[in-house]
Amino acid sequence: MSGVAEKRSARRGRGARRMARQARDVTMLPALKRGLPLTEPMDEGQVARIDAASMHILENTGVVFRDEIALADWRRAGAKVVDETVYPDRGLVRELIATIPETFTYHARNPANNLALGRDRAIFVPMTGAPYLRDLDDIRRTPTLADLADFHKLAHMLPAMHSTAHHIVEPYDHPISQRHLRITYSSIKHSDKTFMGMTTSPRNAEDVMEICALLFGAEFMEDHPVTTGNCNGNSPLVWDETMLGAMRAFCRRNQPVLCSPFVLGGANTPASTAPAVAQLNAEALSALAYTQIIRRGCPAIYGHYLSTVSMKSGAPMAGTPEISLMNMMIGQMARHYRVPWRSSTALGGAKTFDAQAGYESATTLMALQMAGANYMWHAAGWNEAGMHCSMAKFVTDAEQCAMAYRMAEGIRWDDFDAAVAAVAEIGPGGHYLGHAHTLANFQRAFFMPDLFDNSAYEQWKAEGGIDTNIRALAHARELLAAYQEPALDEGINEALLDYIARREREIPAADALNQEY
Amino acid sequence: MSGVAEKRSARRGRGARRMARQARDVTMLPALKRGLPLTEPMDEGQVARIDAASMHILENTGVVFRDEIALADWRRAGAKVVDETVYPDRGLVRELIATIPETFTYHARNPANNLALGRDRAIFVPMTGAPYLRDLDDIRRTPTLADLADFHKLAHMLPAMHSTAHHIVEPYDHPISQRHLRITYSSIKHSDKTFMGMTTSPRNAEDVMEICALLFGAEFMEDHPVTTGNCNGNSPLVWDETMLGAMRAFCRRNQPVLCSPFVLGGANTPASTAPAVAQLNAEALSALAYTQIIRRGCPAIYGHYLSTVSMKSGAPMAGTPEISLMNMMIGQMARHYRVPWRSSTALGGAKTFDAQAGYESATTLMALQMAGANYMWHAAGWNEAGMHCSMAKFVTDAEQCAMAYRMAEGIRWDDFDAAVAAVAEIGPGGHYLGHAHTLANFQRAFFMPDLFDNSAYEQWKAEGGIDTNIRALAHARELLAAYQEPALDEGINEALLDYIARREREIPAADALNQEY
Repeated sequence: MSGVAEKRSARRGRGARRMARQARDVTMLPALKRGLPLTEPMDEGQVARIDAASMHILENTGVVFRDEIALADWRRAGAKVVDETVYPDRGLVRELIATIPETFTYHARNPANNLALGRDRAIFVPMTGAPYLRDLDDIRRTPTLADLADFHKLAHMLPAMHSTAHHIVEPYDHPISQRHLRITYSSIKHSDKTFMGMTTSPRNAEDVMEICALLFGAEFMEDHPVTTGNCNGNSPLVWDETMLGAMRAFCRRNQPVLCSPFVLGGANTPASTAPAVAQLNAEALSALAYTQIIRRGCPAIYGHYLSTVSMKSGAPMAGTPEISLMNMMIGQMARHYRVPWRSSTALGGAKTFDAQAGYESATTLMALQMAGANYMWHAAGWNEAGMHCSMAKFVTDAEQCAMAYRMAEGIRWDDFDAAVAAVAEIGPGGHYLGHAHTLANFQRAFFMPDLFDNSAYEQWKAEGGIDTNIRALAHARELLAAYQEPALDEGINEALLDYIARREREIPAADALNQEY
Repeated sequence: MSGVAEKRSARRGRGARRMARQARDVTMLPALKRGLPLTEPMDEGQVARIDAASMHILENTGVVFRDEIALADWRRAGAKVVDETVYPDRGLVRELIATIPETFTYHARNPANNLALGRDRAIFVPMTGAPYLRDLDDIRRTPTLADLADFHKLAHMLPAMHSTAHHIVEPYDHPISQRHLRITYSSIKHSDKTFMGMTTSPRNAEDVMEICALLFGAEFMEDHPVTTGNCNGNSPLVWDETMLGAMRAFCRRNQPVLCSPFVLGGANTPASTAPAVAQLNAEALSALAYTQIIRRGCPAIYGHYLSTVSMKSGAPMAGTPEISLMNMMIGQMARHYRVPWRSSTALGGAKTFDAQAGYESATTLMALQMAGANYMWHAAGWNEAGMHCSMAKFVTDAEQCAMAYRMAEGIRWDDFDAAVAAVAEIGPGGHYLGHAHTLANFQRAFFMPDLFDNSAYEQWKAEGGIDTNIRALAHARELLAAYQEPALDEGINEALLDYIARREREIPAADALNQEY
């Protein structure tokens, strides 16, 4: 190919990409403002019963904090502490959690992408933590930093995704001890939406805070939440040193953490929904209270990972009725305490992106919409019980979130009288497709998914007879081809890279899962 | 093979089948009694606004009844009638629908399978009307009476299915003019659950009533609903002669019909949810009112088929947010009028049993559970916008209905104190799998789907790496192999066969879609 032809071809390529970009609206949806009444399966007496049981557990069974600093903090706060077990009384717990803000605003590096959270406001955040991916060729394999970047790019472009999260997939091509630096940089560089901060160790969490300070300014962070850390509990009733140290790193800088008991219903809770919620609630309350010991008034989020376990195999399940019910109950408890609430959104246990994955994910998503979760984590990509993130499922889930978003907004009445007048104009036996009201409203009237095929069988067959998985992979490829990186201040970018380079010189590139704090 | 060996082999076969039967509980679940609060997106004022708009439409735009008898009936009832258009005033409509029973009991030929319906009671009924099936080999083809029998057998064995419905698939190997007879016989013979009655013409509906009279006794039917007919409206605002004649056949015998406007939102309604519901509500009310002109006090069900239409292709969609919202609103309207409500449950638009089918079906099912539908039709098998019934989807949907059933029952508290005591006994860091409460409760604690794989990737791969579609087809095959036909009184069976034989002699075996009444 001659130089000129090459240039022309490149220009055509660019032109085609630009057209694809223009055709696709990648503007982020604002934080969801719920307009539908929530499903609240408990009456006031039942909420009080869960609360009383949880407080009884805290006071009498106690919670183990495997961390000397936390134990000292609890003692100072006035709690009874015996060895590693803290027995906070209900008065202290209530007093502490009372200072958690009911709502706050997440700040993105692009202020247009700031997000209100809490009460009737909710955001969708992609899945994280997958040790495998199903890639653009539907191959299940070990992920790399390039794969992670692709997921961050997709999260940037999908309107219902409000965050790039952090390690959507684990980038195995980079040393584990340094991985949190590159993950954080990737989630910042490829998008100007909000992102999550790694909590894999207290020191890693400090690195994330330093990176945030470079990006937003340390002072700005003092009264502006800019990222989210997740701290998993070890159910039943244990919080460990790694998580508590990371929690302190975040809370000291006024950054919110998700206080997430890790519940496998029936294995590490009683085999019954209401009692499992009572235990989970005690666990969440103990961590939420501790965030306020670390820093009074710091935002914090009532979290959990929640599954039920197959009593045949011990495997976690997804989309079961008890998960839905427990989510509805937990939502009520979080609102009872006036604390924002995180749950897990589009979970699937299937090994491929098949009907099972669809049923499980849609069931969980619908239950969470009715339960009223605020921080809707794991909202895209999660399959195989979190063992892999699927490119196909990622884009499909994101569209489902956009649909769930629309549903949760509720009903609009602004055109009611005009449209009822149209009924009279059309009359019995008429049709609406050409009517002025239809023409004025059809684009906003009914959600039209890009990824679901509604054509006739013959047309579908003529177009290749492909299933959702193949269609979604093509869609992901198209999106990635049209991706445009949002601008990042050059000085800030250099500062971030300098910090990462310095820390990579300091941190041995060895396996550092057990690195010292 | 020698005779003895043959017998032994047959015995082993029977033994194996018996074991499979014993292993699988095919006992029907009772009618669902809802224990979850419903999602009601409208306040009282908004319900009143829909009601007023619908009444305004009835009084001023009117409804076309393309049927001389119906027009005469309406005139006698005191309605204004101009040509084919009836303009019933709101007083008359309210007076008429007031006599529709809010609840009633469906009677099955096996009284153990009787079903309460209305208010907080709901039943699941398979899809009907598919011109194609996806069979046990996943081949999409034209169905036969044998295929229909297989679906009736599956409906009989699946615990969450409360009815065999009627023509789940269209049996093309039998003349259309006589088909309703064989369809009805198949739905009765292969199961002792409730069934639906064909309404493909007024005369066909009379045949169904005669068959029901042979099965239950004509007198019994006078105060016991034993079947359901469906009468589709032609939206906007038209009811035709076929449907109205069939309606009369059912109502005269006190048998309930579903008064079902056939709504393709945006095509035959305004392109907006609330106004579309106002129109649909007017249509449903006009038919519900007419059932009470036919026979005062006859049970009737507020129905509809409801889809939104892609404004790109005109194709009906499934699982869209607007369908969910409209279902929630319609549920409120039906309860406002104290009439049982039918909706469509597990709709999919996919051409195969893929992720799309799963998302769409689960979304619709969840929305309907929260909306509080009583007669949950099209609850199993529906894919390709109703163009095919899928064997794989049929059994999977039925399991999903069992899961949705469990969710809708709500939370149980009977073991709360015992299980909270277990939390204290287990203590921080313990595990529950061996605890007495777990052992006593694990079988009822968490739903474990048979059709979804939750095993680890390696195990799944070792077991063949199959997806839900293949797994579900194997499950359907197993069920059919274990099927046992419920007993039917020999005299009644002969009477049914005699009736069918006589009618088949009387009805020409030609295309009789336009047969005379």
